[in-house]
Amino acid sequence: MKRIMLTVSYNGTNYHGWQIQNNGITVQETLQTAISKVLGKDIAVHGCSRTDAGVHAKMFCCHLDCDDNIPFDAFLRGVNSLLPNDIAILNCENVESDFHARFNAMGKTYVYKILNSNKKDPFIAPFVWQIERPLNIDKMNEFCKNLIGTHDFYGFSSSGRTVEDTVRTVSECVVTKENDIISLKISGDGFLYNMVRIIVGTAVDVSDGRLEPDCALSVFETKLRENAGVTAPPQGLFLEKVYY
Amino acid sequence: MKRIMLTVSYNGTNYHGWQIQNNGITVQETLQTAISKVLGKDIAVHGCSRTDAGVHAKMFCCHLDCDDNIPFDAFLRGVNSLLPNDIAILNCENVESDFHARFNAMGKTYVYKILNSNKKDPFIAPFVWQIERPLNIDKMNEFCKNLIGTHDFYGFSSSGRTVEDTVRTVSECVVTKENDIISLKISGDGFLYNMVRIIVGTAVDVSDGRLEPDCALSVFETKLRENAGVTAPPQGLFLEKVYY
Repeated sequence: MKRIMLTVSYNGTNYHGWQIQNNGITVQETLQTAISKVLGKDIAVHGCSRTDAGVHAKMFCCHLDCDDNIPFDAFLRGVNSLLPNDIAILNCENVESDFHARFNAMGKTYVYKILNSNKKDPFIAPFVWQIERPLNIDKMNEFCKNLIGTHDFYGFSSSGRTVEDTVRTVSECVVTKENDIISLKISGDGFLYNMVRIIVGTAVDVSDGRLEPDCALSVFETKLRENAGVTAPPQGLFLEKVYY
Repeated sequence: MKRIMLTVSYNGTNYHGWQIQNNGITVQETLQTAISKVLGKDIAVHGCSRTDAGVHAKMFCCHLDCDDNIPFDAFLRGVNSLLPNDIAILNCENVESDFHARFNAMGKTYVYKILNSNKKDPFIAPFVWQIERPLNIDKMNEFCKNLIGTHDFYGFSSSGRTVEDTVRTVSECVVTKENDIISLKISGDGFLYNMVRIIVGTAVDVSDGRLEPDCALSVFETKLRENAGVTAPPQGLFLEKVYY
Protein backbone atom coordinates (compact mmCIF):
# COMPACT_ATOMS: atom_id res chain seq x y z
CA MET A 1 0.00 0.00 0.00
CA LYS A 2 1.38 3.39 -1.03
CA ARG A 3 0.38 6.74 0.40
CA ILE A 4 0.51 9.72 -1.93
CA MET A 5 -0.15 13.42 -1.39
CA LEU A 6 -1.98 15.56 -3.91
CA THR A 7 -1.68 19.32 -4.15
CA VAL A 8 -4.95 20.70 -5.42
CA SER A 9 -6.34 24.11 -6.40
CA TYR A 10 -10.00 24.96 -6.70
CA ASN A 11 -12.41 27.76 -7.40
CA GLY A 12 -14.98 27.18 -4.64
CA THR A 13 -17.80 29.19 -6.23
CA ASN A 14 -19.88 26.18 -7.24
CA TYR A 15 -19.12 23.87 -4.30
CA HIS A 16 -20.51 23.30 -0.83
CA GLY A 17 -16.99 23.40 0.55
CA TRP A 18 -14.41 20.64 0.72
CA GLN A 19 -15.99 17.99 2.89
CA ILE A 20 -18.52 15.47 1.55
CA GLN A 21 -22.08 16.15 2.67
CA ASN A 22 -25.57 15.12 1.70
CA ASN A 23 -27.01 18.42 0.58
CA GLY A 24 -24.63 19.62 -2.12
CA ILE A 25 -21.70 18.85 -4.38
CA THR A 26 -18.35 19.18 -2.64
CA VAL A 27 -14.74 19.31 -3.83
CA GLN A 28 -13.85 16.10 -1.96
CA GLU A 29 -16.64 14.18 -3.63
CA THR A 30 -15.81 15.52 -7.09
CA LEU A 31 -12.14 14.68 -6.63
CA GLN A 32 -12.84 11.18 -5.27
CA THR A 33 -15.14 10.40 -8.18
CA ALA A 34 -12.50 11.40 -10.76
CA ILE A 35 -9.67 9.56 -8.99
CA SER A 36 -11.76 6.42 -8.47
CA LYS A 37 -12.60 6.40 -12.17
CA VAL A 38 -8.92 6.64 -13.18
CA LEU A 39 -7.76 3.99 -10.68
CA GLY A 40 -10.73 1.72 -11.30
CA LYS A 41 -11.70 1.35 -7.65
CA ASP A 42 -13.25 3.41 -4.84
CA ILE A 43 -10.65 5.78 -3.39
CA ALA A 44 -11.05 8.04 -0.33
CA VAL A 45 -9.06 11.27 -0.11
CA HIS A 46 -8.28 12.98 3.23
CA GLY A 47 -7.97 16.76 3.19
CA CYS A 48 -5.75 19.15 5.15
CA SER A 49 -8.80 21.05 6.42
CA ARG A 50 -12.42 21.75 5.73
CA THR A 51 -13.18 24.82 3.70
CA ASP A 52 -16.63 26.42 3.79
CA ALA A 53 -19.02 26.65 0.88
CA GLY A 54 -17.78 29.25 -1.60
CA VAL A 55 -14.23 29.41 -0.19
CA HIS A 56 -11.36 28.97 -2.68
CA ALA A 57 -7.99 27.25 -2.47
CA LYS A 58 -4.87 28.22 -4.38
CA MET A 59 -3.19 25.30 -2.63
CA PHE A 60 -4.95 22.54 -0.75
CA CYS A 61 -3.37 19.22 0.20
CA CYS A 62 -4.89 15.80 0.61
CA HIS A 63 -3.64 12.23 0.79
CA LEU A 64 -4.87 8.87 -0.41
CA ASP A 65 -3.80 5.24 -0.32
CA CYS A 66 -3.53 2.93 -3.29
CA ASP A 67 -1.77 -0.34 -3.95
CA ASP A 68 -0.74 0.42 -7.50
CA ASN A 69 2.48 1.97 -8.62
CA ILE A 70 0.89 4.94 -10.27
CA PRO A 71 2.73 6.71 -13.09
CA PHE A 72 2.21 10.19 -11.64
CA ASP A 73 2.25 12.13 -14.89
CA ALA A 74 -0.40 9.95 -16.56
CA PHE A 75 -2.43 9.88 -13.33
CA LEU A 76 -2.41 13.70 -13.09
CA ARG A 77 -3.41 14.09 -16.72
CA GLY A 78 -6.14 11.48 -16.41
CA VAL A 79 -7.70 12.91 -13.27
CA ASN A 80 -7.39 16.52 -14.44
CA SER A 81 -9.12 15.67 -17.71
CA LEU A 82 -12.05 14.14 -15.79
CA LEU A 83 -12.28 16.99 -13.27
CA PRO A 84 -14.31 20.08 -14.12
CA ASN A 85 -12.42 23.29 -14.99
CA ASP A 86 -12.73 24.67 -11.49
CA ILE A 87 -10.67 21.95 -9.77
CA ALA A 88 -7.08 21.10 -10.71
CA ILE A 89 -4.48 18.71 -9.31
CA LEU A 90 -1.18 20.60 -9.39
CA ASN A 91 1.14 17.97 -8.03
CA CYS A 92 1.36 14.38 -6.85
CA GLU A 93 4.13 12.88 -4.68
CA ASN A 94 4.97 9.89 -2.50
CA VAL A 95 4.75 10.39 1.26
CA GLU A 96 5.46 8.16 4.28
CA SER A 97 2.76 5.63 5.12
CA ASP A 98 1.94 7.46 8.38
CA PHE A 99 1.66 10.90 6.75
CA HIS A 100 -1.71 12.64 7.26
CA ALA A 101 -2.63 15.74 5.24
CA ARG A 102 -4.45 17.24 8.22
CA PHE A 103 -2.40 16.18 11.23
CA ASN A 104 1.01 16.71 9.62
CA ALA A 105 0.21 20.25 8.49
CA MET A 106 2.53 22.61 10.37
CA GLY A 107 0.66 25.73 9.36
CA LYS A 108 -1.38 27.54 6.75
CA THR A 109 -1.61 30.91 5.07
CA TYR A 110 -4.96 32.41 4.13
CA VAL A 111 -5.59 35.53 2.07
CA TYR A 112 -8.91 37.38 2.17
CA LYS A 113 -9.74 39.86 -0.59
CA ILE A 114 -12.00 42.89 -0.31
CA LEU A 115 -12.98 44.96 -3.35
CA ASN A 116 -13.12 48.47 -1.84
CA SER A 117 -15.01 50.23 -4.60
CA ASN A 118 -18.52 51.19 -5.61
CA LYS A 119 -17.95 49.81 -9.11
CA LYS A 120 -19.53 46.43 -9.70
CA ASP A 121 -17.16 44.07 -11.56
CA PRO A 122 -18.64 40.77 -12.84
CA PHE A 123 -15.19 39.24 -13.30
CA ILE A 124 -13.89 39.99 -9.80
CA ALA A 125 -17.15 39.56 -7.85
CA PRO A 126 -16.85 35.78 -7.28
CA PHE A 127 -13.51 36.31 -5.50
CA VAL A 128 -14.05 39.30 -3.23
CA TRP A 129 -16.22 40.87 -0.55
CA GLN A 130 -17.26 44.17 -2.07
CA ILE A 131 -17.42 47.11 0.35
CA GLU A 132 -18.26 50.53 -1.09
CA ARG A 133 -17.30 52.83 1.81
CA PRO A 134 -13.55 53.58 2.05
CA LEU A 135 -11.79 51.36 4.55
CA ASN A 136 -9.00 52.49 6.86
CA ILE A 137 -5.98 50.23 6.29
CA ASP A 138 -4.05 51.72 9.23
CA LYS A 139 -6.81 50.93 11.74
CA MET A 140 -7.21 47.43 10.26
CA ASN A 141 -3.48 46.80 10.69
CA GLU A 142 -3.59 48.18 14.24
CA PHE A 143 -6.22 45.53 15.01
CA CYS A 144 -4.32 42.80 13.16
CA LYS A 145 -1.04 43.24 15.03
CA ASN A 146 -2.80 42.29 18.30
CA LEU A 147 -3.61 38.87 16.81
CA ILE A 148 0.03 37.91 16.33
CA GLY A 149 1.29 35.48 18.95
CA THR A 150 -0.23 32.58 20.87
CA HIS A 151 -3.78 33.23 22.05
CA ASP A 152 -7.04 31.47 22.82
CA PHE A 153 -9.03 32.25 19.66
CA TYR A 154 -12.27 30.73 21.00
CA GLY A 155 -14.11 34.06 20.67
CA PHE A 156 -12.95 34.30 17.04
CA SER A 157 -14.65 31.04 16.08
CA SER A 158 -18.20 29.89 15.36
CA SER A 159 -20.25 27.33 17.23
CA GLY A 160 -19.61 24.75 14.51
CA ARG A 161 -16.02 24.26 15.77
CA THR A 162 -15.02 20.63 16.18
CA VAL A 163 -11.92 20.90 18.40
CA GLU A 164 -11.38 21.20 22.15
CA ASP A 165 -8.13 23.13 22.14
CA THR A 166 -8.76 26.63 20.81
CA VAL A 167 -5.29 28.06 21.43
CA ARG A 168 -3.53 28.93 18.18
CA THR A 169 -0.38 30.77 17.18
CA VAL A 170 -0.65 33.45 14.51
CA SER A 171 2.74 34.33 13.01
CA GLU A 172 1.65 36.96 10.48
CA CYS A 173 -1.43 39.13 10.02
CA VAL A 174 -1.22 42.12 7.74
CA VAL A 175 -3.50 44.22 5.56
CA THR A 176 -2.30 45.69 2.25
CA LYS A 177 -3.98 47.57 -0.58
CA GLU A 178 -3.31 47.46 -4.31
CA ASN A 179 -5.59 49.59 -6.45
CA ASP A 180 -9.13 48.76 -5.23
CA ILE A 181 -8.23 45.40 -3.72
CA ILE A 182 -7.53 45.15 0.01
CA SER A 183 -5.91 41.87 1.09
CA LEU A 184 -5.69 40.52 4.63
CA LYS A 185 -2.99 37.86 4.83
CA ILE A 186 -2.81 35.64 7.90
CA SER A 187 -0.49 32.74 8.69
CA GLY A 188 -0.59 30.45 11.69
CA ASP A 189 -0.21 26.92 12.98
CA GLY A 190 -3.94 26.27 12.66
CA PHE A 191 -7.29 27.97 12.31
CA LEU A 192 -10.63 27.38 14.05
CA TYR A 193 -14.00 27.15 12.32
CA ASN A 194 -14.72 30.51 10.61
CA MET A 195 -11.72 32.09 12.35
CA VAL A 196 -10.31 33.93 9.33
CA ARG A 197 -13.73 35.17 8.23
CA ILE A 198 -14.50 36.50 11.74
CA ILE A 199 -11.08 38.18 11.92
CA VAL A 200 -11.71 39.88 8.56
CA GLY A 201 -15.21 40.95 9.62
CA THR A 202 -13.79 42.34 12.87
CA ALA A 203 -11.07 44.25 10.98
CA VAL A 204 -13.82 45.87 8.88
CA ASP A 205 -15.83 46.71 12.02
CA VAL A 206 -12.68 48.32 13.47
CA SER A 207 -12.17 50.31 10.27
CA ASP A 208 -15.77 51.52 10.46
CA GLY A 209 -15.40 52.51 14.13
CA ARG A 210 -17.92 50.00 15.47
CA LEU A 211 -15.11 48.27 17.37
CA GLU A 212 -11.82 49.53 18.81
CA PRO A 213 -8.46 48.51 17.29
CA ASP A 214 -7.54 46.71 20.55
CA CYS A 215 -10.80 44.73 20.70
CA ALA A 216 -8.91 41.45 20.14
CA LEU A 217 -7.61 41.68 23.71
CA SER A 218 -11.12 41.52 25.15
CA VAL A 219 -12.13 38.73 22.75
CA PHE A 220 -9.12 36.70 23.96
CA GLU A 221 -9.92 37.45 27.61
CA THR A 222 -13.69 37.00 27.63
CA LYS A 223 -13.82 34.26 24.94
CA LEU A 224 -17.08 35.86 23.82
CA ARG A 225 -17.94 35.67 20.13
CA GLU A 226 -20.13 38.77 20.50
CA ASN A 227 -17.10 40.89 21.36
CA ALA A 228 -15.73 40.23 17.87
CA GLY A 229 -17.16 41.54 14.60
CA VAL A 230 -19.26 40.11 11.80
CA THR A 231 -18.34 36.99 9.83
CA ALA A 232 -17.07 38.08 6.42
CA PRO A 233 -18.73 36.30 3.46
CA PRO A 234 -16.96 33.19 2.10
CA GLN A 235 -16.17 34.16 -1.48
CA GLY A 236 -13.28 36.49 -0.57
CA LEU A 237 -11.34 33.74 1.23
CA PHE A 238 -8.45 31.81 -0.30
CA LEU A 239 -6.44 29.06 1.35
CA GLU A 240 -3.09 30.21 -0.04
CA LYS A 241 -0.56 27.73 1.28
CA VAL A 242 -0.23 24.67 3.51
CA TYR A 243 3.08 24.00 5.26
CA TYR A 244 4.47 20.53 6.09
CA MET B 1 -40.88 58.79 -24.07
CA LYS B 2 -37.16 58.85 -23.32
CA ARG B 3 -34.54 56.59 -24.82
CA ILE B 4 -31.57 55.71 -22.65
CA MET B 5 -28.44 53.70 -23.32
CA LEU B 6 -26.96 51.33 -20.77
CA THR B 7 -23.34 50.20 -20.73
CA VAL B 8 -23.21 46.72 -19.28
CA SER B 9 -20.51 44.19 -18.39
CA TYR B 10 -21.05 40.50 -17.86
CA ASN B 11 -19.31 37.26 -17.12
CA GLY B 12 -21.00 34.96 -19.64
CA THR B 13 -20.07 31.66 -17.97
CA ASN B 14 -23.55 30.93 -16.66
CA TYR B 15 -25.61 32.36 -19.54
CA HIS B 16 -26.92 31.10 -22.86
CA GLY B 17 -25.61 34.27 -24.48
CA TRP B 18 -27.24 37.68 -24.70
CA GLN B 19 -30.44 37.09 -26.63
CA ILE B 20 -33.62 35.77 -25.01
CA GLN B 21 -34.39 32.17 -25.89
CA ASN B 22 -36.55 29.36 -24.60
CA ASN B 23 -33.96 26.83 -23.54
CA GLY B 24 -31.77 28.74 -21.12
CA ILE B 25 -31.22 31.85 -19.03
CA THR B 26 -29.79 34.76 -21.02
CA VAL B 27 -28.25 38.09 -20.09
CA GLN B 28 -31.02 40.04 -21.86
CA GLU B 29 -33.74 38.25 -19.92
CA THR B 30 -31.93 38.69 -16.58
CA LEU B 31 -31.38 42.38 -17.28
CA GLN B 32 -34.97 42.99 -18.41
CA THR B 33 -36.33 41.29 -15.30
CA ALA B 34 -34.24 43.49 -12.97
CA ILE B 35 -35.01 46.73 -14.87
CA SER B 36 -38.72 45.92 -15.07
CA LYS B 37 -38.80 45.37 -11.32
CA VAL B 38 -37.13 48.72 -10.60
CA LEU B 39 -39.33 50.66 -13.06
CA GLY B 40 -42.51 48.82 -12.10
CA LYS B 41 -43.43 47.84 -15.67
CA ASP B 42 -42.31 45.52 -18.44
CA ILE B 43 -39.26 46.95 -20.20
CA ALA B 44 -37.56 45.59 -23.32
CA VAL B 45 -33.84 46.20 -23.85
CA HIS B 46 -32.21 46.11 -27.29
CA GLY B 47 -28.58 44.97 -27.46
CA CYS B 48 -25.68 46.04 -29.69
CA SER B 49 -25.16 42.45 -30.82
CA ARG B 50 -25.81 38.85 -29.90
CA THR B 51 -23.11 37.10 -27.98
CA ASP B 52 -22.93 33.30 -27.90
CA ALA B 53 -23.41 31.13 -24.82
CA GLY B 54 -20.36 31.46 -22.58
CA VAL B 55 -18.97 34.59 -24.25
CA HIS B 56 -18.14 37.54 -21.96
CA ALA B 57 -18.48 41.30 -22.33
CA LYS B 58 -16.29 43.91 -20.70
CA MET B 59 -18.48 46.47 -22.43
CA PHE B 60 -21.84 45.79 -24.03
CA CYS B 61 -24.38 48.47 -24.93
CA CYS B 62 -28.15 48.31 -25.07
CA HIS B 63 -30.99 50.79 -25.17
CA LEU B 64 -34.48 50.97 -23.72
CA ASP B 65 -37.44 53.33 -23.70
CA CYS B 66 -39.24 54.59 -20.65
CA ASP B 67 -41.58 57.48 -19.97
CA ASP B 68 -40.21 58.35 -16.55
CA ASN B 69 -37.51 60.81 -15.77
CA ILE B 70 -35.25 58.27 -14.15
CA PRO B 71 -32.74 59.46 -11.57
CA PHE B 72 -29.82 57.60 -13.13
CA ASP B 73 -27.78 57.09 -9.98
CA ALA B 74 -30.65 55.52 -8.03
CA PHE B 75 -31.71 53.51 -11.08
CA LEU B 76 -28.19 52.09 -11.50
CA ARG B 77 -27.92 51.19 -7.83
CA GLY B 78 -31.38 49.64 -7.81
CA VAL B 79 -30.88 47.50 -10.90
CA ASN B 80 -27.33 46.48 -9.93
CA SER B 81 -28.52 45.36 -6.51
CA LEU B 82 -31.17 43.14 -8.14
CA LEU B 83 -28.80 41.73 -10.75
CA PRO B 84 -26.63 38.72 -9.93
CA ASN B 85 -22.91 39.31 -9.34
CA ASP B 86 -22.00 38.32 -12.89
CA ILE B 87 -23.86 41.17 -14.60
CA ALA B 88 -23.26 44.86 -13.89
CA ILE B 89 -24.59 48.09 -15.35
CA LEU B 90 -21.61 50.44 -15.61
CA ASN B 91 -23.27 53.51 -17.02
CA CYS B 92 -26.59 54.99 -18.04
CA GLU B 93 -27.11 58.00 -20.33
CA ASN B 94 -29.70 59.81 -22.41
CA VAL B 95 -29.62 59.25 -26.17
CA GLU B 96 -31.62 60.56 -29.13
CA SER B 97 -35.02 58.98 -29.63
CA ASP B 98 -33.87 57.35 -32.91
CA PHE B 99 -30.69 55.89 -31.43
CA HIS B 100 -30.37 52.12 -31.77
CA ALA B 101 -27.71 50.19 -29.83
CA ARG B 102 -27.20 47.80 -32.73
CA PHE B 103 -27.61 49.94 -35.83
CA ASN B 104 -25.74 52.98 -34.52
CA ALA B 105 -22.68 50.96 -33.48
CA MET B 106 -19.77 52.14 -35.64
CA GLY B 107 -17.52 49.29 -34.65
CA LYS B 108 -16.42 46.86 -31.98
CA THR B 109 -13.27 45.46 -30.48
CA TYR B 110 -13.06 41.84 -29.37
CA VAL B 111 -10.26 40.18 -27.42
CA TYR B 112 -9.80 36.40 -27.36
CA LYS B 113 -7.60 34.85 -24.67
CA ILE B 114 -5.65 31.59 -24.94
CA LEU B 115 -3.88 30.07 -21.94
CA ASN B 116 -0.81 28.56 -23.59
CA SER B 117 0.33 26.27 -20.80
CA ASN B 118 -0.02 22.71 -19.58
CA LYS B 119 -0.85 23.93 -16.08
CA LYS B 120 -4.53 23.77 -15.21
CA ASP B 121 -5.69 26.93 -13.41
CA PRO B 122 -9.20 26.86 -11.89
CA PHE B 123 -9.32 30.66 -11.60
CA ILE B 124 -8.38 31.42 -15.21
CA ALA B 125 -10.13 28.45 -16.89
CA PRO B 126 -13.56 30.13 -17.31
CA PHE B 127 -11.94 32.95 -19.33
CA VAL B 128 -9.53 31.20 -21.70
CA TRP B 129 -9.09 28.48 -24.28
CA GLN B 130 -6.30 26.35 -22.87
CA ILE B 131 -3.83 24.97 -25.40
CA GLU B 132 -0.87 22.96 -24.07
CA ARG B 133 1.41 22.83 -27.14
CA PRO B 134 3.49 26.00 -27.70
CA LEU B 135 1.91 28.37 -30.21
CA ASN B 136 3.83 30.41 -32.77
CA ILE B 137 2.90 34.08 -32.30
CA ASP B 138 4.77 35.17 -35.44
CA LYS B 139 2.84 32.79 -37.68
CA MET B 140 -0.44 33.80 -36.03
CA ASN B 141 0.36 37.47 -36.70
CA GLU B 142 1.30 36.67 -40.29
CA PHE B 143 -2.18 35.18 -40.73
CA CYS B 144 -3.84 38.08 -38.90
CA LYS B 145 -2.35 40.85 -41.03
CA ASN B 146 -4.13 39.42 -44.09
CA LEU B 147 -7.47 40.03 -42.39
CA ILE B 148 -6.97 43.78 -42.14
CA GLY B 149 -8.95 45.73 -44.71
CA THR B 150 -12.34 45.31 -46.37
CA HIS B 151 -13.15 41.73 -47.34
CA ASP B 152 -16.04 39.33 -47.76
CA PHE B 153 -15.84 37.37 -44.51
CA TYR B 154 -18.56 34.86 -45.55
CA GLY B 155 -16.12 31.92 -45.21
CA PHE B 156 -15.21 33.10 -41.72
CA SER B 157 -18.79 32.80 -40.47
CA SER B 158 -21.13 29.98 -39.44
CA SER B 159 -24.38 28.95 -41.05
CA GLY B 160 -26.34 30.64 -38.26
CA ARG B 161 -25.55 34.07 -39.75
CA THR B 162 -28.56 36.38 -40.06
CA VAL B 163 -27.32 39.03 -42.51
CA GLU B 164 -27.12 39.23 -46.30
CA ASP B 165 -24.12 41.50 -46.62
CA THR B 166 -21.03 39.67 -45.41
CA VAL B 167 -18.45 42.31 -46.35
CA ARG B 168 -16.75 43.78 -43.27
CA THR B 169 -13.80 46.04 -42.61
CA VAL B 170 -11.24 44.91 -40.05
CA SER B 171 -9.06 47.79 -38.86
CA GLU B 172 -6.85 45.92 -36.37
CA CYS B 173 -5.95 42.28 -35.81
CA VAL B 174 -2.93 41.49 -33.68
CA VAL B 175 -1.70 38.68 -31.45
CA THR B 176 0.35 39.41 -28.32
CA LYS B 177 1.68 37.27 -25.49
CA GLU B 178 2.10 38.13 -21.81
CA ASN B 179 3.36 35.31 -19.62
CA ASP B 180 1.19 32.30 -20.51
CA ILE B 181 -1.69 34.32 -21.94
CA ILE B 182 -1.94 34.88 -25.69
CA SER B 183 -4.44 37.56 -26.73
CA LEU B 184 -5.87 38.07 -30.19
CA LYS B 185 -7.33 41.57 -30.46
CA ILE B 186 -9.54 42.42 -33.42
CA SER B 187 -11.42 45.62 -34.24
CA GLY B 188 -13.79 46.24 -37.10
CA ASP B 189 -17.00 47.85 -38.24
CA GLY B 190 -18.96 44.67 -37.62
CA PHE B 191 -18.62 40.94 -37.10
CA LEU B 192 -20.52 38.00 -38.57
CA TYR B 193 -21.87 35.04 -36.60
CA ASN B 194 -18.91 33.19 -35.00
CA MET B 195 -16.46 35.30 -37.04
CA VAL B 196 -14.02 36.05 -34.22
CA ARG B 197 -14.05 32.48 -32.93
CA ILE B 198 -13.36 31.09 -36.43
CA ILE B 199 -10.55 33.62 -36.96
CA VAL B 200 -8.97 32.56 -33.64
CA GLY B 201 -9.35 28.87 -34.48
CA THR B 202 -7.78 29.49 -37.90
CA ALA B 203 -4.87 31.39 -36.31
CA VAL B 204 -4.24 28.34 -34.10
CA ASP B 205 -4.43 26.00 -37.11
CA VAL B 206 -1.89 28.24 -38.86
CA SER B 207 0.38 28.13 -35.81
CA ASP B 208 0.15 24.33 -35.80
CA GLY B 209 0.95 24.13 -39.52
CA ARG B 210 -2.41 22.66 -40.56
CA LEU B 211 -3.10 25.83 -42.57
CA GLU B 212 -0.83 28.33 -44.31
CA PRO B 213 -0.40 31.90 -42.98
CA ASP B 214 -1.98 33.25 -46.21
CA CYS B 215 -5.02 30.96 -46.03
CA ALA B 216 -7.31 33.97 -45.46
CA LEU B 217 -6.89 34.92 -49.11
CA SER B 218 -8.44 31.65 -50.28
CA VAL B 219 -11.22 31.90 -47.68
CA PHE B 220 -12.07 35.37 -49.01
CA GLU B 221 -11.93 34.18 -52.61
CA THR B 222 -13.77 30.85 -52.35
CA LYS B 223 -16.16 31.90 -49.52
CA LEU B 224 -15.80 28.33 -48.25
CA ARG B 225 -16.03 27.81 -44.50
CA GLU B 226 -14.00 24.59 -44.85
CA ASN B 227 -10.97 26.56 -46.05
CA ALA B 228 -10.82 28.25 -42.65
CA GLY B 229 -9.91 26.59 -39.35
CA VAL B 230 -11.82 25.33 -36.33
CA THR B 231 -14.20 27.46 -34.29
CA ALA B 232 -12.49 28.40 -31.03
CA PRO B 233 -14.54 27.67 -27.87
CA PRO B 234 -16.66 30.54 -26.51
CA GLN B 235 -15.20 31.08 -23.04
CA GLY B 236 -12.03 32.84 -24.28
CA LEU B 237 -13.98 35.57 -26.07
CA PHE B 238 -14.59 39.07 -24.67
CA LEU B 239 -16.51 41.86 -26.32
CA GLU B 240 -14.10 44.60 -25.23
CA LYS B 241 -15.55 47.80 -26.61
CA VAL B 242 -18.41 49.16 -28.71
CA TYR B 243 -17.94 52.40 -30.66
CA TYR B 244 -20.67 54.94 -31.44
